[in-house]
Amino acid sequence: MSMKVGARNKIKGKVSSIKTGDIMSLVKFDVTDPCTMASVLTTESLEELGIKDGDEVELIVKAIHVLPVKN
Amino acid sequence: MSMKVGARNKIKGKVSSIKTGDIMSLVKFDVTDPCTMASVLTTESLEELGIKDGDEVELIVKAIHVLPVKN
Amino acid sequence: MSMKVGARNKIKGKVSSIKTGDIMSLVKFDVTDPCTMASVLTTESLEELGIKDGDEVELIVKAIHVLPVKN
Amino acid sequence: MSMKVGARNKIKGKVSSIKTGDIMSLVKFDVTDPCTMASVLTTESLEELGIKDGDEVELIVKAIHVLPVKN
Amino acid sequence: MSMKVGARNKIKGKVSSIKTGDIMSLVKFDVTDPCTMASVLTTESLEELGIKDGDEVELIVKAIHVLPVKN
Amino acid sequence: MSMKVGARNKIKGKVSSIKTGDIMSLVKFDVTDPCTMASVLTTESLEELGIKDGDEVELIVKAIHVLPVKN
Repeated sequence: MSMKVGARNKIKGKVSSIKTGDIMSLVKFDVTDPCTMASVLTTESLEELGIKDGDEVELIVKAIHVLPVKN
Repeated sequence: MSMKVGARNKIKGKVSSIKTGDIMSLVKFDVTDPCTMASVLTTESLEELGIKDGDEVELIVKAIHVLPVKN
Repeated sequence: MSMKVGARNKIKGKVSSIKTGDIMSLVKFDVTDPCTMASVLTTESLEELGIKDGDEVELIVKAIHVLPVKN
Repeated sequence: MSMKVGARNKIKGKVSSIKTGDIMSLVKFDVTDPCTMASVLTTESLEELGIKDGDEVELIVKAIHVLPVKN
Repeated sequence: MSMKVGARNKIKGKVSSIKTGDIMSLVKFDVTDPCTMASVLTTESLEELGIKDGDEVELIVKAIHVLPVKN
Repeated sequence: MSMKVGARNKIKGKVSSIKTGDIMSLVKFDVTDPCTMASVLTTESLEELGIKDGDEVELIVKAIHVLPVKN
């Protein structure tokens, strides 16, 4: 893709379901390729979380913050 | 995990790097397990996007919207 | 206030600390008045969460999503 | 709660109403315990706002940014 | 307006259409006055984007992140 | 642009300043072309706001929610 997007997370997904509503719609995607994800949080929250290299975490993202882009 | 989180996207990741700043910090994660992701968008945007089952897309998420949770 | 804001959550707070950074700053507020808060989530997430009237929950909000307004 | 969440705002609420829609739902909560809230904003916006310790402000949060978590 | 809002983007718009849904609604606005917009992104994303003064870009904002305020 | 983005707001801007920080950076853009903007809010907030066609409002967007894209 020749377009550059100013965001850290760009994840490949394949559409698996579409549910259309009056104003909003919900789309699901299968993600199979390994990828890197990034989180920005306050340094305070990071210290409280107490994570270090190799730690396993869960990354929570509200669906409303996921922006699909199609070439 | 016994706690339930009211969000569609819960992705397993392993901390790969931490960069600490004055107020905000940036953490990177390796995601290797296949997962499902969900996006909520306006039905108008969905129609304009013109995606259907099986289509490959890119899912853009600003790092600020990724919330790490540690058990 | 004569101005009307198109958001559900309008919480009174008193500034308790300010930490100024190069680009971003972090401000803390004491909230003492009881208030109502509102959450919009997917109906799917709501069903999975399985909450009902009277249930106690924790409401998580990233600090970046809190917008201070001063009269 | 043994789970740690990488966010500054963790507010206790009690479910007071649930309104279920086709794709999205709206949940209201009573918040009665005093709490601390945090906001991250640009240092530029902070300076323009001109707030200092003890100032009373209103904290605006769109409902879509409130994530309910249930133990 | 005597109220001060802790955000960088404050854009004048005139309501051009309103579409009301069960839980969420979609409002459109005509913006005709020239304005300044601001984006906060990770320094990493900025470097990858490789933009410099005078470059033309497209600014993408999900409609859910636009907060209307009426005097 | 051949790429399609699943968002309502796509605004043309020209970079006018760049301020680079440790983790986050702040970029300003001049927007001169008239454009349409869209907001999604709860139907409750819309009713409370009481706006109708032709009303003038202010559209508030935190800079963190603006995603620059470069062709």
